[in-house]
Amino acid sequence: MNAAIAAFADALGPDAVLTSERDLREHRDPYSYAGWDEFTASAVVLPATVEQVQAVVRIANAHRVRLWTFSQGRNNAYGGPAPRVSGSVLVSLRRMNRVLEVNEELAYALVEPGVRFFDLHEAVRSVGHKLWISVPDVGWGSVVGNALDHGWGFTPYGDHATSQCGMEVVLANGDVLRTGMGAMSGSRTWQVHRRGFGPSPDGLFMQSNFGIVTKMGVWLMPQPECYLPGWVRVRDEADLGPLVDALRPLLLDGTIPNKPLIGGPAGANAMEMADPGRWNMRFALYGPEAVVDAQLEDVRAAFSRIPGATVGGTKYAGDEAAAAGPAGDRVQAGVPGMDILELVRRRGGEHGGHLDFSPVCPLTARDVTALCGLMRSLADRHGVAYSPGLIASPRSLVHVLPMIFDTTDEAETRRAYELYEVLVTEVARAGYGLYRAHLRFMDLVAEQYDFNDHAQRRFNQSLKDALDPNGILSPGKQGIWGRSTR
Amino acid sequence: MNAAIAAFADALGPDAVLTSERDLREHRDPYSYAGWDEFTASAVVLPATVEQVQAVVRIANAHRVRLWTFSQGRNNAYGGPAPRVSGSVLVSLRRMNRVLEVNEELAYALVEPGVRFFDLHEAVRSVGHKLWISVPDVGWGSVVGNALDHGWGFTPYGDHATSQCGMEVVLANGDVLRTGMGAMSGSRTWQVHRRGFGPSPDGLFMQSNFGIVTKMGVWLMPQPECYLPGWVRVRDEADLGPLVDALRPLLLDGTIPNKPLIGGPAGANAMEMADPGRWNMRFALYGPEAVVDAQLEDVRAAFSRIPGATVGGTKYAGDEAAAAGPAGDRVQAGVPGMDILELVRRRGGEHGGHLDFSPVCPLTARDVTALCGLMRSLADRHGVAYSPGLIASPRSLVHVLPMIFDTTDEAETRRAYELYEVLVTEVARAGYGLYRAHLRFMDLVAEQYDFNDHAQRRFNQSLKDALDPNGILSPGKQGIWGRSTR
Repeated sequence: MNAAIAAFADALGPDAVLTSERDLREHRDPYSYAGWDEFTASAVVLPATVEQVQAVVRIANAHRVRLWTFSQGRNNAYGGPAPRVSGSVLVSLRRMNRVLEVNEELAYALVEPGVRFFDLHEAVRSVGHKLWISVPDVGWGSVVGNALDHGWGFTPYGDHATSQCGMEVVLANGDVLRTGMGAMSGSRTWQVHRRGFGPSPDGLFMQSNFGIVTKMGVWLMPQPECYLPGWVRVRDEADLGPLVDALRPLLLDGTIPNKPLIGGPAGANAMEMADPGRWNMRFALYGPEAVVDAQLEDVRAAFSRIPGATVGGTKYAGDEAAAAGPAGDRVQAGVPGMDILELVRRRGGEHGGHLDFSPVCPLTARDVTALCGLMRSLADRHGVAYSPGLIASPRSLVHVLPMIFDTTDEAETRRAYELYEVLVTEVARAGYGLYRAHLRFMDLVAEQYDFNDHAQRRFNQSLKDALDPNGILSPGKQGIWGRSTR
Repeated sequence: MNAAIAAFADALGPDAVLTSERDLREHRDPYSYAGWDEFTASAVVLPATVEQVQAVVRIANAHRVRLWTFSQGRNNAYGGPAPRVSGSVLVSLRRMNRVLEVNEELAYALVEPGVRFFDLHEAVRSVGHKLWISVPDVGWGSVVGNALDHGWGFTPYGDHATSQCGMEVVLANGDVLRTGMGAMSGSRTWQVHRRGFGPSPDGLFMQSNFGIVTKMGVWLMPQPECYLPGWVRVRDEADLGPLVDALRPLLLDGTIPNKPLIGGPAGANAMEMADPGRWNMRFALYGPEAVVDAQLEDVRAAFSRIPGATVGGTKYAGDEAAAAGPAGDRVQAGVPGMDILELVRRRGGEHGGHLDFSPVCPLTARDVTALCGLMRSLADRHGVAYSPGLIASPRSLVHVLPMIFDTTDEAETRRAYELYEVLVTEVARAGYGLYRAHLRFMDLVAEQYDFNDHAQRRFNQSLKDALDPNGILSPGKQGIWGRSTR
């Protein structure tokens, strides 16, 4: 390891290699109990260029050093920057923070992995481009890292993995691959056309340890003439099913084009909604004013069939949407913020942390009420507050349960971890899989993906061994281990 | 080979193995000159179940026999069912023709690869589901095969590879993989949620020879309340650029949600448009009547800035859209037909055939006029009629040039092939890559994807060797060759 550290410093410069106790502590899981000695790195390297990333993987191969890559490392509810295997060398891509291009005409950007949502938002605004980005709840994360982890935002482009177009990837052997149309040098369509000639590997580099993404295209939406963030409130516990069934056709036919969020009273609080009902949903409409007006009428008509439901919204001109309004109005317009962290601190204290438990179910009353009922009963049994945020797509729903705790309180922290473990197998038994998982549960979650005696695992292992025979890249990520570590 | 044929007949039944001269002739490239002795299979096997597909690959491995898979084999402008390597055994999936599920509530279907667009359309209509499918110009092809080849339709779901959700794949080693949420046995979200846990391999099985897809989910659109197929006509050659620049914002903001098609006078003829202009575009709107009305006004306003442009459309109730109207009105409503084949016969005679040359460019006036100008001048020089169909997406345009010829006229057929070869390198030099290619040009097209000294090829070869060490699956497809055939 010492020889590897020396080689990293030689290739990247001594200031690009961190090994102090304090630096390593800062790269641990931020929401773990401090006394638990797990997921600790042995060094952090900070390449600034693609060539330096290539040098890092070559050195790692030569010295059989395990790496763990992160873009910004703000994947906090799932482990932050911490490595699955203690002793790994962290590859921080924070220095690769250039917005390489913003194209207003074709509505895309090309970014490096260190670019935060705040940075991309600023890059677009500072030159006056009439484009909106899509952001998750917290704006300090990496645009690339979030998409690679299948992350979600709340505009019509909120499925971040799908809004990706074109990647550059450093493979474990140091080779540099460009995907899609970027596989042609001099291509004019790398960021505008989704696939190239032959198979498309983009999905392989998401939630995986098959390569290090060093550039990514991201599609942006044109600033609409009119923006209308809206809300729906229903009174009773039993109204969740009817709410979901009324929402589905509106999403399927595009009347509501974005990713609505449904929450209980605490969720409404997080969304800064006044006068919450038992269940509360935010959504948004975008477009020419006449279209938005017509769509709002259809939304009203659909939900008015639920007794006691109320529907409303605030109309903005597109160019003023970013300026003000509550958090929900900003986030659905792609304006990055930090509001949610305040909420975690409010509920978990100064040292508040959270795990997010995130299974997916079909967007039907039957499935949503079954999943919520199952999770509530288990949360109650473990003494953990059940206050989910439900992110809706036309056919599926991502059920995010933030389990908030005081990270200085070992018993409280442990309760959340214990509930998480129980939930993984219980929701799988009911047919619901997680879309993402915390470091500690990656193996357990992967274990649930068991079709044909774990064909997915066998397939992933074949690819891992072919692309990374020494197993240097992020061993254990999403439950994928190279030959030497199985 | 004889031993393999016997083993296939043993596993599948003798009627599932075809070796007669006549059967093999029927599986050649339908649009090749009959005297050219290329791309000829040595046998055809017809598995009817997943288990039989597994048996086929196991036998092929044992006997080192090369396979070439097709779903319906109607990929006619690109080679039909014919194999890249003469002597291959064709795996025809036409007997696997079950529509396994149509879910009206969540708007999807699960189909086997032998299901044709006609079959899926009929399966949806026969039970009265209010769902529309998306179809390419000709309805006899496979829903799965078309999506796997990155094919296009003309509804809002017209990017068929993107409308796919969840696959089952038989790998070269006989293993059966399910992708996405289907990797969990008992999953309730296989066809409703795009990605599972870990990397997503779906894109790997498109335009590739890494596996045989035996089931695929496909998203369907809800039947709209109102359907308005529309048209835009402009007068002058130079109006193409302004047409494209006026269209782009309407696609980017979703005002026009489908895949518009632009053509010259001959293209307008194919679209059954009356009174064509120099350039003609069809598009369609779908939704509640008030929304469609508002959108049509925005479309009119956008194109009215082009002097001499005219805009129109026909409003249908959603439930009558399938009934009648010209071909363009039907195909944009997902009603399968065979009209385009008539056109090929009209222009190429009884034995008319065509090659489709299909590069992709950004959806800007500059790029579209540059690409069209380049292709027209080369087509003129080779004496081939230049009459393209341009399929528009929000950021890119697929330029399909059908080169129509009489397949009994060797000189005429050869002219099209010669032009195709010249065009491949000329458009690549200008930065435009093909999204699909005819058998004869797969290597040449792949050669153009040359970034970093052909990193894509190296990457594809690593995967090929890992997943299919004997190189039995479709050698040469999209220019990918296994170790034994490189």
